[in-house]
Formats: sequence, C-alpha cells, structure tokens
Amino acid sequence: MLAAAHLLRFVTAPLARHIHMSRPASAKVAVVLSGCGVYDGSEVHEASAVMVHLSRGGADVAIFAPDVDQMHVINHTKGEPMEEKRNVLVESARIARGKIAALSTLDVAGHDAVILPGGFGAAKNLCTFAVDGADCKVNPEVEKTIKSFHDAKKPIGLCCIAPVLAAKLIPGCSVTVGNDQEEGGRWPYAGTAGAVGKMGATHIRRDVNEVHVDTANKIVTTPAFMCETKLHEIYDGIGHMVKEVLDMV
Amino acid sequence: MLAAAHLLRFVTAPLARHIHMSRPASAKVAVVLSGCGVYDGSEVHEASAVMVHLSRGGADVAIFAPDVDQMHVINHTKGEPMEEKRNVLVESARIARGKIAALSTLDVAGHDAVILPGGFGAAKNLCTFAVDGADCKVNPEVEKTIKSFHDAKKPIGLCCIAPVLAAKLIPGCSVTVGNDQEEGGRWPYAGTAGAVGKMGATHIRRDVNEVHVDTANKIVTTPAFMCETKLHEIYDGIGHMVKEVLDMV
Repeated sequence: MLAAAHLLRFVTAPLARHIHMSRPASAKVAVVLSGCGVYDGSEVHEASAVMVHLSRGGADVAIFAPDVDQMHVINHTKGEPMEEKRNVLVESARIARGKIAALSTLDVAGHDAVILPGGFGAAKNLCTFAVDGADCKVNPEVEKTIKSFHDAKKPIGLCCIAPVLAAKLIPGCSVTVGNDQEEGGRWPYAGTAGAVGKMGATHIRRDVNEVHVDTANKIVTTPAFMCETKLHEIYDGIGHMVKEVLDMV
Repeated sequence: MLAAAHLLRFVTAPLARHIHMSRPASAKVAVVLSGCGVYDGSEVHEASAVMVHLSRGGADVAIFAPDVDQMHVINHTKGEPMEEKRNVLVESARIARGKIAALSTLDVAGHDAVILPGGFGAAKNLCTFAVDGADCKVNPEVEKTIKSFHDAKKPIGLCCIAPVLAAKLIPGCSVTVGNDQEEGGRWPYAGTAGAVGKMGATHIRRDVNEVHVDTANKIVTTPAFMCETKLHEIYDGIGHMVKEVLDMV
C-alpha cells in the first residue's frame, strides 16, 4: 500500500501541476491610474502598494489611464503649479513601468475587478472633485469604467480620495474616506466626508487600517493617505482593501 | 501584593512611555533618490518599498536628491526620449510627497545610514554608468555622500543598479547586482556584474529574495528589479536589505 501511494504521488504531482498551469485561477484585475505624484496624479505609494498586494495575491494585473492632459503640473518641492503640460497616460506609465494602455481600451469583460488608487490625480484628472466638490464632473471613460464594473457585479476597490468617484456614480452606495472630523490633524481632508453625503452616498468612518465593504454594490474602500500617519500603516490598509477585492472575485 | 503590583503598573506605565518618547531609539536614515520613474529616475516601487520597510522598522527618514537636470526625460509608454528637461530634485519630490532636500545639504553627522534605491536614474543622474559603464563618473555630491558614510563606518544600502556606485567609489568592496548570467531572461542586465569586476569590486551572485552584506565596508545590496520577477518578491528582497541596514545601525 505504501509503495502504491508513493507511486501515485509521483504520477499525480506533475499532472496536478499541469492542470494548475493550464487553468490558472488568477484574478484579472484592472488598475486605473491618474498620473504620477500625489499632488497632480496617482499617489505613488498607494499605487505601488496596490500592485505589490495584487502581486502577492496572485492576480494578473493590467494597468490603464486616460489619455488626457493633467489638470495641471505641480512642482512637488513647492506645492505650486509649473508652466508645462503633462499627459495622464504618459506619466502613469512611470508607475506602470511602461506596461499600460489607454483607459478607452479597457473592456470590463476581460477583467474580474477594478482598483483605483488615490492621490489628487483622482480628484483632478479622473474627475473635477478638487475644483467642484460634490458638483464635480467625471471623465467619461472613468464613468463608463466604474459603471460597467458595477453593472457586471464585479468588485471595485478605491482608496484615499478616489471613493468620491463611486459616491458620485453609484447612487446610494456607501464608502469611507476616513473620518468626518480632523481630530487634531490626523484627518486633514475630513471635509470630504460631507461631500460624499451631498452626492447621495453614505459615509462610513473607518481608521487607516480598516476597510469599508459595501457588499450590495461590491465596493471596497480604505482611507490610505486621507490619514496623516506612518507609511507602513497605509500600505497595510491598502493590503486589506486588495484582499477584500480579491476575495469577492 | 496583587494590589501593589497593580498600583506599580499604573505608576510605571506612563513613566516608561515618557522615557520612550523623550529618548527615541529611531535610526535616522537618509534616502537618496534620482528622479521618479524607472527609465530616467528612481524606480518608483523600489523607492516606495524602501520607505515602507523603513517606516515599519521605526526609522526616521529624510529624503534627498541632487538639484541637477536629469540626463534626459523618457516617455515611459514608448521607451523613447521626450523633448523636455526635468530636474532630479523636483521629480524625486513626487515620491517624497514634497518632503525632500537638496543632496548638497546632507550632513553625514545627522544620519545613521544611507539607502539608494535603483532605477536607471541611479545610472543616468547619480553617475554616468548607463553611458560609460565601468569608466563612469559619479556626481560629486553622490560621491561625497557615499564616501562620507563609508568613512564614518555607517551602513550603506543599495539595490538594483545602484550598487555600481559603491563598486566605483569603495575600492575592493563586494556587492550584488543579481546574476552574471541572463538565465533565459530572468536577469536581463546580467552584463552589469562584469562591469562591477572591472571597477575593482567583487560581484556576489544573489537571488531576488537575498541580500549580500559586505560586513567590512557595511554595504548591503539586493538585486531588486535587476531580476525579471513578481513585484512582491522585489518588495520582500528590499525588505531584507532595509532590515540588514537597520540591524547594523
């Protein structure tokens, strides 16, 4: 019996490997970026954390960004606009290491989930929230993307300021952007929670290491850099968001 | 006795907290960036991984970059140069979220260690290795920085292509840039190992999840994106590098 079991192990192991390789169970996740740099694009560390956690979760990642001019270019040493133009897709490619496609080519049928990291780019280049608040307009390709994943009942993950996109586009959804009180500087953008309410969504308080899951709408959100805290705590919060998204696939 | 122990706990706990807060044991680590984006600056994910691991390790991080023009600007969607100029300090500020200083102001006395992430910026903006190979020249501020930390016997961490800086500046040191053989595309920049030897240093083979520690020179290196592999493996390799650096402080 022992010998037979041994034989069986040697015979079945390669077969099992073959089955595994020919039918990968990898979740296909689209990531939508908004430039490269917190003040006018995707927050670099949030985008990287999303990609590291997706890699660890075994996901097959495809990266997209709209092929449009940035709202403006910020000199990050001064926090002031520079006299030049940059393109959201071209700058996002810095985070994507060149492996990126125009958001116009994203077909929801080819992906199991979508994740949008934050950074001011989400509120300046993906929509006009940074200027217009609750009255913001959303880039048509971004709108199509989020509504398509929602209609297909595929999970949508967002962090930092990006949850305002779901608040604007998915009527009655619930999201977190952290806290509605500044709490001594820990939540410098606490006013965003009020705007979430004005757009018809419900704001749920969550700390930086927590996520909020709107199970009916399959929307997963976490505060990330809405919180003034240590970088590894933001990294870990994003890890929870990515895990919840992958668990829903 | 129990009651007394209880009292003691309440009396000593705030005191312990006070001592901890007034004498932080945080390592002060300088991080030197070379722009923002793998093909003409710091590799974004390497820089972020360094900062996440330093944050988790409780380090007090200060970020620097030379205030010089980039060698060129690469359109990361095409891998081709663009007709514009960008400044290394200004672009590095995108990764540093604005909290960055000119490398000319870095005083070794104020820091316990220095870490230089990779990306082509390390070989284009911090030195001319990308153009001149083993005959490269090193930016004078970068040279001063690395030699100062070495002279002060303070640890130096480098990853990806950045170890060529130590190979050029610290005679007889040993570093890893991964493998000296391409091994079917896993090590696309394997030729770098030969250049390390030409500069008078010793190349040590290491896999992406490993580090090489030159204990005599306090130089810690790991291959990172010299290896064509999954992002979380690069993140973890950099974690080992950061841990070895912090352990030496």
